[in-house]
Amino acid sequence: MIVDEGLELLTEEQARALLATGQVGRVGITIGALPAIFPVNYRVIDGAVVFRTSPGSKMSAAAEGAVVAFEVDDYQLADRSGWSVLAVGRAEIVHDLDVTFKVLDAQLESMVEGRRTAIVRIEPTFLSGRRIVHEGAVRSA
Amino acid sequence: MIVDEGLELLTEEQARALLATGQVGRVGITIGALPAIFPVNYRVIDGAVVFRTSPGSKMSAAAEGAVVAFEVDDYQLADRSGWSVLAVGRAEIVHDLDVTFKVLDAQLESMVEGRRTAIVRIEPTFLSGRRIVHEGAVRSA
Repeated sequence: MIVDEGLELLTEEQARALLATGQVGRVGITIGALPAIFPVNYRVIDGAVVFRTSPGSKMSAAAEGAVVAFEVDDYQLADRSGWSVLAVGRAEIVHDLDVTFKVLDAQLESMVEGRRTAIVRIEPTFLSGRRIVHEGAVRSA
Repeated sequence: MIVDEGLELLTEEQARALLATGQVGRVGITIGALPAIFPVNYRVIDGAVVFRTSPGSKMSAAAEGAVVAFEVDDYQLADRSGWSVLAVGRAEIVHDLDVTFKVLDAQLESMVEGRRTAIVRIEPTFLSGRRIVHEGAVRSA
């Protein structure tokens, strides 16, 4: 186990497993040369991060073809535990009906109302994760 | 109240108030031409977002002088409510002793152990926020 400044560096396999457990993640994109981060409801489908947005929105325009960052984490302030996973990859608007059906099957819906009929897919090229470890603490599996 | 696709666009004042309530936020930076997002424990001090990191880390190197995104949100999946705030501005490593003392006073500590003695400060140039609204729902104040 590699620990760097109080953070255990997770294996890609561990990061992939945690990525699949999240429900809300954050997408980092560039809009008009400025960085932006927006929360989204997501699912992992066939190893890729998939979320819905509005067609023609700033989000869908910025995401189309761009290399974006996607982050998900879970923290418990009470016992100072937690983890985060970062996926980086090219985003694409999904036109494939097969993927669209899988999205509907996965019941991927935004908490937000409105026409979120565009489906964005991020295939992670880089996947990493970190987990908080406390010196001397025995972590349960 | 401006509502766009199920999201109420908050005023800058509302966004500033919510920003001050958070404890964990996410910083969006560019490392080696690739976008990245990392969670941090933060405080708002004199209107700026302040967090600690390790001196010489990728984070402190990437943040120094760069325009970065900072996001904080809070969601309750149970009733599909929530909000997010996005601050964009130039990041700087704090060398000012006055700010350093304020950071210590604010008990800004990372959940993570390790030498996080570098202080990064983001003065928001752009501040925006969004809150989920459900059609027909009466939102309590």
